[in-house]
This record gives sequence, C-alpha cells and structure tokens, in this order.
Amino acid sequence: MTRLWNDPASFADDVVDGFVRANGRWVRRVPGGVSRSTRSAEPEVAVVIGGGSGHYPAFGGLVGPGLAHGAAMGQLFASPSAQQVESVVRASEQGRGVLLTFGNYAGDVLHFGAAQEAVRKDGIDCRTVLVTDDIFSAPPAEQHRRRGIAGDLTVFKTAGAAAAAGYGVDDVERVARAANARTRTMGVAFSGCTLPGAETPLFTVPEGRMAIGLGIHGEPGIELTDIPSAAGLAELFIRYLLGAAELPDGITARGARVVPVLNGLGSVKSEELFVVFSRVAELLEDAGVELVDPQVGEFCTSFDMAGVSLTLFWLDEELERLWLAPADTPAFRTGAVDVASLQPVTDDGGGARPAEDDALPESSEDSRRAAARIAAALEAMRLAIDDEAAELGRIDAIAGDGDHGIGMQRGTAAAAAVASSLAARGAGAQTLLERAGDAWSNRGGGTSGAIWGLILRTLGEHLGDAEHATGALVAAGLAAAKDAVTAYGKASVGDKTLVDSLVPFADTLAARVAAGDGLADAWREAAEAATAAAEATANLLPGMGRARTHGEKSLGVPDPGAVSLALIARRVHAVLDTAAAATA
Amino acid sequence: MTRLWNDPASFADDVVDGFVRANGRWVRRVPGGVSRSTRSAEPEVAVVIGGGSGHYPAFGGLVGPGLAHGAAMGQLFASPSAQQVESVVRASEQGRGVLLTFGNYAGDVLHFGAAQEAVRKDGIDCRTVLVTDDIFSAPPAEQHRRRGIAGDLTVFKTAGAAAAAGYGVDDVERVARAANARTRTMGVAFSGCTLPGAETPLFTVPEGRMAIGLGIHGEPGIELTDIPSAAGLAELFIRYLLGAAELPDGITARGARVVPVLNGLGSVKSEELFVVFSRVAELLEDAGVELVDPQVGEFCTSFDMAGVSLTLFWLDEELERLWLAPADTPAFRTGAVDVASLQPVTDDGGGARPAEDDALPESSEDSRRAAARIAAALEAMRLAIDDEAAELGRIDAIAGDGDHGIGMQRGTAAAAAVASSLAARGAGAQTLLERAGDAWSNRGGGTSGAIWGLILRTLGEHLGDAEHATGALVAAGLAAAKDAVTAYGKASVGDKTLVDSLVPFADTLAARVAAGDGLADAWREAAEAATAAAEATANLLPGMGRARTHGEKSLGVPDPGAVSLALIARRVHAVLDTAAAATA
Repeated sequence: MTRLWNDPASFADDVVDGFVRANGRWVRRVPGGVSRSTRSAEPEVAVVIGGGSGHYPAFGGLVGPGLAHGAAMGQLFASPSAQQVESVVRASEQGRGVLLTFGNYAGDVLHFGAAQEAVRKDGIDCRTVLVTDDIFSAPPAEQHRRRGIAGDLTVFKTAGAAAAAGYGVDDVERVARAANARTRTMGVAFSGCTLPGAETPLFTVPEGRMAIGLGIHGEPGIELTDIPSAAGLAELFIRYLLGAAELPDGITARGARVVPVLNGLGSVKSEELFVVFSRVAELLEDAGVELVDPQVGEFCTSFDMAGVSLTLFWLDEELERLWLAPADTPAFRTGAVDVASLQPVTDDGGGARPAEDDALPESSEDSRRAAARIAAALEAMRLAIDDEAAELGRIDAIAGDGDHGIGMQRGTAAAAAVASSLAARGAGAQTLLERAGDAWSNRGGGTSGAIWGLILRTLGEHLGDAEHATGALVAAGLAAAKDAVTAYGKASVGDKTLVDSLVPFADTLAARVAAGDGLADAWREAAEAATAAAEATANLLPGMGRARTHGEKSLGVPDPGAVSLALIARRVHAVLDTAAAATA
Repeated sequence: MTRLWNDPASFADDVVDGFVRANGRWVRRVPGGVSRSTRSAEPEVAVVIGGGSGHYPAFGGLVGPGLAHGAAMGQLFASPSAQQVESVVRASEQGRGVLLTFGNYAGDVLHFGAAQEAVRKDGIDCRTVLVTDDIFSAPPAEQHRRRGIAGDLTVFKTAGAAAAAGYGVDDVERVARAANARTRTMGVAFSGCTLPGAETPLFTVPEGRMAIGLGIHGEPGIELTDIPSAAGLAELFIRYLLGAAELPDGITARGARVVPVLNGLGSVKSEELFVVFSRVAELLEDAGVELVDPQVGEFCTSFDMAGVSLTLFWLDEELERLWLAPADTPAFRTGAVDVASLQPVTDDGGGARPAEDDALPESSEDSRRAAARIAAALEAMRLAIDDEAAELGRIDAIAGDGDHGIGMQRGTAAAAAVASSLAARGAGAQTLLERAGDAWSNRGGGTSGAIWGLILRTLGEHLGDAEHATGALVAAGLAAAKDAVTAYGKASVGDKTLVDSLVPFADTLAARVAAGDGLADAWREAAEAATAAAEATANLLPGMGRARTHGEKSLGVPDPGAVSLALIARRVHAVLDTAAAATA
C-alpha cells in the first residue's frame, strides 16, 4: 500500500528528484531520466537502460561506474517516451556508440526504437538488446517473445562491465546478447500493488494464494496455488529452472557455474528471502551447480507487490569475469572501483538535445484553419476517452496491466491542451500535430503513448504547415502512420493490438477517398470498419510479446488499444461531419 | 504480512543460515550469530554489534571490513543471550580489545553486560557504548535512557572505521560515544508487523493513521495523527529534529555538516522514500545545513512494518572522515576497500568457547534428590506460564512489545526439558540449575530470559552439587539472585519491573527462614508478598529505559515480569508443599 506522496500526477517526477538529491555522487538529472555524474578517464560505449518507474532499483539505481551510463525513467509502469530516451542517450554517449538494453515490453520497444532511429540519423552507432528472461511469458522455443524482469540485472551488469573494460560497441552488444541467452527467471506473487492516489489495487492476488508467473505489471500468470512453505517455494523454483526446457543451449547443471539472484518484488522481507535462499542454495548444490556471488535482495520490484523471483545466470568464463568486475551505483556495489580516476560531469543535461525552439514556424491561412479543426478533433478525442476510461482499464486488466485507460486519458489531455494553445497562437497543422504528438507520448507513456505520438507526427509531416489539407492528404498521412506503427511495433493484423483496427481504418479511408467520397463520408465508413475490427479482436489471442500462454483469459474481450482507436475514430467523425455541414 | 517460512520456531535460525549462504564473502556463521569471514592484515579492535532478529540489515548485514566484526543475532525481536554474545565476541576479537555497541533495550543491556563480564574475566578489554538516538523514547535531558533505532548505523560505522584505521580500544569507544551523542532519530509508523506463524499482528496502527514515535518493537508512540503528504512528513521530521531541544550540544544548524539517513521500516517503498527525501533535502538546505553522503533505504527495519524514520548525524571533522571511510558488508558498501589485503578466516566459530563438556560433574545423593525436586518445580513453572501466556502477552503489549508471554513459554519449556533430562541422568542441583538457566536464557531470549537465567545460575552456585539443600541455603541463594538481578538490570524497586516482586519475595523468604519457618511455609509467605507486590505495580509508571514518556498508558496494568514471578512463586509453593507433606 502506498501512503506517501504529494500529487499522484507528479509522483514519478518527485521520485527522480529525491533520488538524484540523495545520489548525486553517482547520477545527475537530465531530461527524461538520469545520467552518470562522473565520466571515466577513457571514453566508453554508453549502456543506456530504462523503463517505467515503480521498479526501483530498476532503473536509475543501476547507473554508475561499471554498470549503466544512463537510465530513461518513464511514468509509473509506463515506458519513457522516445524523446526521453533520446535525451538520456545524448547525455550519456561518449563517441564510442550506445547500447540500449531494457525489458521486452511493447511500449519500451517502440520508444527506445524511435530514439535509436533518431540518434542514428546523427551518426551515433546505437544498438539494442532486449531482456527476455521471464520463463512464463512465452514458451522456451520463443525466448525472444518473453518479457524482461529481474534478469535485467545480469544483462545490464555484464554489458556495463564490458563497456568499462574498453570493449567496442560490437562486443558490448555481443556480451549483452550472451548474458540474456543465459538468464532465466521465474516469479511468483502473493499480492498486487496499489499506485499513489489509486482507490483500488492495480491488480490483486486472492488472499492466501500464490500466482505463479504473474508479471511485474500484473500481467496474468499461469496458475494460482496455495502458498507453499519457504522450502516448498525454493523447490518449485528449482524444478522449473533446472528443467531441461529452461537450461540454456549446451549447458548441463552439474558442474555449471551460476549466479542466483533471489529478488523481492516489494513487500517481501529480507528475512523471508534468506529463508527461501537457504533451501535454494541447498538444492542447487545438490544438483552439482556451483554458486557464484549470490544476490539476495531487491533488484527489480513491482512497487509494493508481495512476490519473489529467482533468476539463474549461467556463466561462461567471460561473463563470470564481467559479472564480478567492480561496479559502484546507488543500489548495486561490488569490488573496488577506482574512484580517484573518475571525472565529475557538471552539466545538467547539456548532452541532451536543446529544448525545442518555442517560436512557431510560418504557416499558411489554410493550414491554420486545418490546425484549428484538428485541435477540435483532439478535444473530441479527449472526451471520447474520458467517457470510456474505466471500461478501457477494465478490459486492459484482463490480459495486460490495466493502465490503458489512464494512459490514454493522460495522453489525450496533454495533446488536446497543447493543440488548443498552439491553435490559438496560429500554428500550422504540422507544427500542431507534431507537438501534440510529443505531448501525448511524453505524458501518456506506455505503448499507446508511443503509437499515438507516432500517428500524430506522421500525419503532421504529410499535412505540412502550408498545404491545403485535402481528404487525399489526410488519407495518405494516415496510411503512412499505419505503416510507421506496424513497422515500429512489429505487430501484424491478428495479434490483438491497435493495429487490428488501425489497418482497416486507414485502408478504408484511403479507398473511399480514392473512390471520390468527401473526407467526412469516407471517415464514417473507415470508423465503422475500425469499430467492427475492434469488436472482432475479442475472438483473438494476444501476440506481440504479450502473455501468449495466458491469452485464453482475454478470449471474449476485445483489445483495449483497438477499441480506443475505434472510439476516437467515431468521435472525430462527428467533428468532421459538423465541419462539413458548416461549409456546405 | 509474513508469508514465507518453514517452521516459525526455527525462523530466526533459518534466516541466519540463508544469510550466511548468500554472503559468505563477508561473514561466517558462529554460535550465536556471525563473524567476519576475512581478517585485515593488522589486528583491529573488534566492534561487536547485535540485537534481536527481524531488523535486517541490522545486525548481520552490517558485518564486514570497515564496519562491524561480528553480530550477535537473537530470536525475532528478542535479545541474543549472554552466551550468544560471548561466543560472537570470542570469535571476533583479535587481541586488541572489544567494543560492544547496540541499541539501548533492557534485554540487550543485560545480555551484552553479562557477556562483557565473562570475557573480561579472561583479560579481554571489553567496553560498551549504548545507542540512544530515538528522540521520543525519553526527554532530551535523559538521552542516556533513550532507545536505539536507525541511528545504530552511524555509531557502528564510525566505530568500525576507527577500528579499521588502527585506533586503540579507548579511541574506538570515544568515537562511538561521540557519534551517539551527535545522532538523533525520529520515527513514524503506519502499520504494525506480523511475525511468522502469528495469527494476529504483534501490534497495529489504526488504518489511515500515523503513529509518531512508535518503537521498532511496537513500543507506544507519543501521538496518533492523520497521514500527512510526503512533504508534510518531511516538514514534521525537520520541525522536531532541528528544534533547539534536539540539536547536540554546541551545534547550530546553519553551517553544520550532517549525514541524513532516511530509513524505511519494512514495507514502505524506495519510491516513497525518495519523494519524502526530496523535501527533507530542501528543508535542510533552507536551514543552511550541508548534506553529506545522504542515505535513503532500509538500515534498521521492524520486519514488515510500514514506517519511516529520519536520522540526522551531526558531523565533526573526525566523524566525517570515519563516516566516509571505505566499508564493505552485505548491506552497506562505500568507497574502495582493499580486498586484496584481506585474509580468509576459515574456522567456523573456533574462536568461540568450546562446547561445554556433556559429562556430569560428581554429585551427592542429597543434591541429586534436590535436583529432582527442582526439575519438578521447573515443570510446574512451565505449566504456570503456559496457563497465563496469552494474558502476559496482552499486558506486556500495553507498554512493551507484547512478547513476554511467548518468551517465557520458550524459556520455561527449554529449562524444564533440560532439567528433566539432567535429573534422569543424576545431575546435582548446581549442574541442573546452571544448565537449565542457560537453556532458559538462550531459548527464551529477551530481558526475561536473561533475568531468569541469572536467577537459576545464581541459586545453583549456592546449592552446589554436594551440599544438602536446606531452606537457609535456598533463601541465601535467592537473596544472592536478587542482588545479581538488580545489579545487572540496573532497576530498582518502583521501576515497574520484575524486581518489584523479586525483592519482597527474596526478602520475605529470608526473613521467614531466619525466623525458623520450614521452606514450604516460608515460601508461601514469600509468594504472597510477591503477588501483592506484582499487583501493586499497576499503580506505577515504567522506568529503566522503557517508554517513560508513554508510561501513563500502562497505569492500571501490572508489570508482566513481576506478575510472571508471582505466578511461578505460587505454583512452586504447591510443589514444595506436596514434597513437605510427603516427607512429613
């Protein structure tokens, strides 16, 4: 239970503020998160990590010599935006390339991916390695689809040590991939968690029961059981993690060297962890596994969730050397870092891209008129989401983390506010859409923030600040947005995502406009197609790295992202219809 | 809430086992707790800390180079026994003297005090510095009576650093005293905690309320309020801790250098702590205080209690240097410890006193007969406590930590079992009483374990293994036990402790025996005097370092220790009476 906060809306920001005030020895605040406050004598490949807040010490607590160079820190349980990631990358990179590494969640994949594209345009050699250690989030044959949980630590630590050892970006990436391939985690939970200011828990576990495989944002687990004894839990962990299906390629348990990481998810006590670890160690030793540098504590939490995970990191010679190398961060310290050789970094985010010029680019009267209509449409979108936010949260909680409604509310509110202000100041359509899109992805966070930011920005690029915003231009812009979203999100039609309604929407709109319909009429047809497609997602199982093995729970329930898009499309049609009637 | 354990009775032992398995790099298990697993090249003064379990990382988590040399670890929330402390001291000392330092609780004072006496007999120069940082446990003028809470860390750390720097025992003691004099802590709590296997919480805080000054074992606080915002809590902390009454002698806030330690008591999340710390740092800076090396995390917990404390450690030049010196322990690491210079210690407690010879000393038939009767008396004592354990716990919870009934049950059960076995094997009275007393203090733990262990051992010394156990000898032995208890416990009649019934009991017994009464008759009179005195403690306020400022809560309720003694005295009279009738 969370009791201490000021304003729930500013909670994540307030956390970063206090975190940096307490840990200035290691980190400085930069737009979007934190970056190291010192630099080693020789430039290093920059390892940039990140994700939603609420998982401390992931992610800011793992920044410092020998570990990460920067952490992008999003809202609670929501991915940082592409802009935030990009800012942290620019503040952290030292001219030798960048490794982005983070847990495999759709929102993070989108935002870190967009940031990677952006910095690559400036010639920065940027790579990505996803952490995929959660054994219950996809079958063994599909390790690449699994989510990342406490195994983050082994990947971050070895990549950071490789960077500190002077490895080039190819080798830092290789080490991170090897570490991820040799890391497996199994988690259980006894309770959900409640975010600041929330009246109800984000998710729950029935009293006295244990959810096996429950995700760190409440993604459904595979099974509910009674709570075993501490020794019984240790036996369960080891039965799964030493099972043949979960041994990394070419490994046999006997004689292998392993780092065990027993992680508390939030409100499980250290004392309980030690009692569990006692039996874990015995069982591993019985199996002939050699324990190296065991870790028992909190490494990736889920706010105040009561739960435990066990990670096994199967070493080879290089990974063991890198794991044991010195590191000195707010939350993870080992060995003797040569502090005297470090140089202070005093700028507070000077490495980040300068704040966008607040002056408005020139625009035509036509474009300003279109911009005003778009602002009205964004306000309609905000109202559409407000009306349905609770229901969107409810259906999202069935297969996801239940924050879709809240995230869409934050995003549409921010976008509508920015748009209203820019329209009043005379911005053109492109400027208004790009800045509204940035506001949406920054404030909305998560997957939906990333996607909607991308849709708005792509549409803006097509409309420009001077052109006359014809139906054909709008349809072409939304077709391009569709392509951009499917490319970034790596989701296809049928994966039970927003793509399921976005594709028929954009395709229908383009077809009807090409057939000669006016925008308002074409849009009505497109919105109807999107609505039908969104409803049909109730018959689908989720894909795209989400909880495939538990997808049956969401059968009969439509995808919240697809539903949002349909709701928005219908409400925007009303705006277009009114506008068409007024000009008729 | 605790969910993970095997057997609640072995929980504290299981914790130590898992803790040592995970942290063998720093600690090895020795009887009674842990000691460092490495030794520095040059011998050091040994800093030995300790207390009850359930406060991780206090105390075992703070053992390692640059910090403590050993930690005595008792049962949950119960002091380690004198034997446990002594064992850890012997395993940790390196020929340069020993500093015992621990929080000021009656049970710890007794047990560490007895251990100090024991090792001094062997020429070990052993000193004690009590930690007394909890500002709400006694008024400012009585700092020496205050309890020790999270401020433990500053005293332990600077003393450990002084030892590592080669200071002699005089100077290590001086540093610890100076650090304690400059450390102040204020705590608040939002919930109680529940120990493994317990059906009800050990103590509670009403839902939605905050208890100011609640102790880490549930000792009553000064006030209940609504839960403030995070900033509001920071303001409350600073208002008290920068108040004139709490500034150490000769200190003004402006320009002072301070280490702030913001400590989570168990289930408060790191994120919440950072939000509180953000405002704490602002307020300290506004007051002109310079922050040095802030600490935000868990340093002294109260199991799964939801609560927060803020410690301010007011530095001088020497203390700052010692605070910042390198340290490397399971839970507290700072700076670069020269690991290469450390030598492994491989014996597992060889430094501890060898296990007592299991062979029985010779004894007379008279003494064996007395021993059999004493074993029967101990069994009667066990039953007397079993019958009243719940009520003893209830009255203890009003001004204390509510574990008196449980501790007495553990202690009498262990003593009765040992006595029964030894009587069957033909032990004399002294051997039986000494070993039963050791079992009582080891298993019972806490203050009551220490006192009853002392009573049994002292009586045993008087009875011997050969003498005829006359009434005069028993009365003399119990008079000596009374003196020993008052000397160790530093309590006087009227402090609302067991002494209040022990003194009239022993005095009446001695007087009646001197007047010519038989033992059974004299004992009846003594038991009646003890009962009347125990009942009269309901009219007293507690003393002896206990919550003096909150003593009014216990007005009308007798002292549980005094009541236990009276219950035991009455039940033993029945045994004596039966024996007298049988021999009459």
